[in-house]
Amino acid sequence: MRMSVIEEMGRRSRAASLKLSYLSTAAKNKALLAMADALIGSADEILEGNRRDLDKGVKDGLSSALMDRLALDEKRIGDMADGLREVAALPDPVGEVVEGWRLPNGLDIQKVRVPLGVVGIIYEARPNVTVDAAGLCVKSGNAVILRGSSSAINSNMVLTRVISEAAEGAGLPEGSIQLIRDTGRESAKELMRMHGLVDVLIPRGGAGLIRTVVEESTVPVIETGVGNCHTYVDAYADEEMALNIVINAKCQRPGVCNAMETLLIHEKIASTFLPRAAAELRERGVELRASREARRYVPDAAEATEEDWYAEYLDLILAVHVVGSLEEAIEHINRYGSRHSEAIVTNDYGAARRFVAAVDSADVYVNASTRFTDGNQFGLGAEIGISTQKLHARGPMSLRELTTTKFVIYGDGQVRT
Amino acid sequence: MRMSVIEEMGRRSRAASLKLSYLSTAAKNKALLAMADALIGSADEILEGNRRDLDKGVKDGLSSALMDRLALDEKRIGDMADGLREVAALPDPVGEVVEGWRLPNGLDIQKVRVPLGVVGIIYEARPNVTVDAAGLCVKSGNAVILRGSSSAINSNMVLTRVISEAAEGAGLPEGSIQLIRDTGRESAKELMRMHGLVDVLIPRGGAGLIRTVVEESTVPVIETGVGNCHTYVDAYADEEMALNIVINAKCQRPGVCNAMETLLIHEKIASTFLPRAAAELRERGVELRASREARRYVPDAAEATEEDWYAEYLDLILAVHVVGSLEEAIEHINRYGSRHSEAIVTNDYGAARRFVAAVDSADVYVNASTRFTDGNQFGLGAEIGISTQKLHARGPMSLRELTTTKFVIYGDGQVRT
Repeated sequence: MRMSVIEEMGRRSRAASLKLSYLSTAAKNKALLAMADALIGSADEILEGNRRDLDKGVKDGLSSALMDRLALDEKRIGDMADGLREVAALPDPVGEVVEGWRLPNGLDIQKVRVPLGVVGIIYEARPNVTVDAAGLCVKSGNAVILRGSSSAINSNMVLTRVISEAAEGAGLPEGSIQLIRDTGRESAKELMRMHGLVDVLIPRGGAGLIRTVVEESTVPVIETGVGNCHTYVDAYADEEMALNIVINAKCQRPGVCNAMETLLIHEKIASTFLPRAAAELRERGVELRASREARRYVPDAAEATEEDWYAEYLDLILAVHVVGSLEEAIEHINRYGSRHSEAIVTNDYGAARRFVAAVDSADVYVNASTRFTDGNQFGLGAEIGISTQKLHARGPMSLRELTTTKFVIYGDGQVRT
Repeated sequence: MRMSVIEEMGRRSRAASLKLSYLSTAAKNKALLAMADALIGSADEILEGNRRDLDKGVKDGLSSALMDRLALDEKRIGDMADGLREVAALPDPVGEVVEGWRLPNGLDIQKVRVPLGVVGIIYEARPNVTVDAAGLCVKSGNAVILRGSSSAINSNMVLTRVISEAAEGAGLPEGSIQLIRDTGRESAKELMRMHGLVDVLIPRGGAGLIRTVVEESTVPVIETGVGNCHTYVDAYADEEMALNIVINAKCQRPGVCNAMETLLIHEKIASTFLPRAAAELRERGVELRASREARRYVPDAAEATEEDWYAEYLDLILAVHVVGSLEEAIEHINRYGSRHSEAIVTNDYGAARRFVAAVDSADVYVNASTRFTDGNQFGLGAEIGISTQKLHARGPMSLRELTTTKFVIYGDGQVRT
């Protein structure tokens, strides 16, 4: 049987990954800096490729938001190069001895951090993901197979050629960074079925993309990003603090996964807090969708339906509900949430402790905005995504989450009896 | 739409898991000890259920190996109870602060160990898995859905009833331990599609079962157990040590996943070592299947085919190959192996270091038998399986591998600017 193009890529990736796994940090950093320089040096070429995508975007009638995500300019190219230089400056996770001990029979066991191997990234629109993901994979010693969307294919092709040539020129094995040029559905499906050749697939995009990958993939998947985030203003909240946090979580950047989508308020504080919060939010253009209980305090708000509690609006819309107790707030979050980021605003020690223990989400905040859920904000360095599943990684993922471990056992001839 | 029996189980499990997640260690240990006592107290009932499975096994013409795995007696019931008591004595992984730091803006971030949530186990034949898996899940604060094979269904039903009644009697939430009674294919498939309700599926059984779960599941899977393990006897091996290790790795218990299936020998040592090893192995009933290169030294061995290099015999059969270099041995292992456990026997420092770095397997040994790959042998306590994938867990998995982490962030009103 003849090998398909995608399978051949998988085999090249696997071969590259075996070499990458023991490359020195210095060699990887050299490649990252060469990639950064190459981006700057090839700016004209990159902008030309991007122009073709933008022209096609106009013809296809892409929304202005999508066109903005797609567009590159000198500054954005410079940002991508800076991103690679920042990744070069981060510590290398590979080789860390996570733990180690000696057995009674004299065997020395060490659990050592090693690269995952071959990482597949399936993503939408934004061409900067091409460079960001490749940089994080190189630094963590992984080969990467990129599969972007058709709307950005010309940009992605130029970017991948520029950075992979630079990386290989700096000593990285052939096949370390590859792009699937066929943007049809079948090529993505084939990538998802490359169990044994690809060690993990990370989808980056909307809920539809992520669902498809979860449904179709035999390769292990890390789910990222869908964020139906809640803020719960407790009976014993500082109202000024709560107002600040609520406005920040909803309005500072509504189109991202860590923005608040549902506001829960304890009934004891609702009569003073909710009308005030509603006025401030509306002043900032936020549309409220309120439960029956909440509409007692904001009667002019639209009525929320069951779907609103599940919604990730990514927009200036907010679902609002008034609860009779902390337990009711926790139940609501665990029932409707996407397990991403939730906050409680309270000065009640017991309520804070209970919320933190009982809310089943990747990131749980006391008295802070959910907008902080981000690898850079957490001080982890650049981020490959935010995991909303529980296996392998949960919350913001950076270099360490692109590694696994290997047990190394040193003996002197021990056998089992 | 009416909920199916399996979906109802999933919802009960999820509700139970939310309560289990913050149960105290003392409460979980109390339940484990009650489960152990209940097993002893219900021995007659358990043996009666097991008798029905054994009678059916005779009718169905099960092999004596399978009948042996299926059979329970007072001693095996005692062993299961002891296993639960040992798990009670292990440290609780939940609540560990894995790491924590303070951000410049004053936010305190803690990464805290929490249970996975709902764990699904799909397994074959042996009824002791029912009790072992339930015990590990209880201790790590997870709800468990068990799905055993039809050949053990009566044993599994009695065992699950006995331990879940004891657990709930000791204060565990209803639905913490559940068994799927329908052993048809559809029920297993439904369990595999319960994405969102089940957090992880762990298949325990043969390669066929594991492949099916990987193919069908939308729930994240941890692959376990297929072991095509290698021992490489280097040019600079101590021949006595190598002989001991080879015999132990092949013969001490050939039917398990950490037994050696392929022996690789450097050509420099083959003429003295291989005939001697062959004689010793044959004396112990081992059939050799040798490559052309190896048959120069053991001309009466059967000829190995390409399939032999991939085979997990689980029997007294051994594939043998002679290589020209360390690199050739590494390439062979990375090409044909199942990434489980491999050993090098050598006194060459550089060869040991190179083998450890370049072999892409969960457990890599220098001068020791691969038979040590086992949670108990590693000192990790009881084992839920041996992961041969790279995501989440790799190598022997114990209580800690049944947990995930949650970021808890404590603030004083911080918002993002």
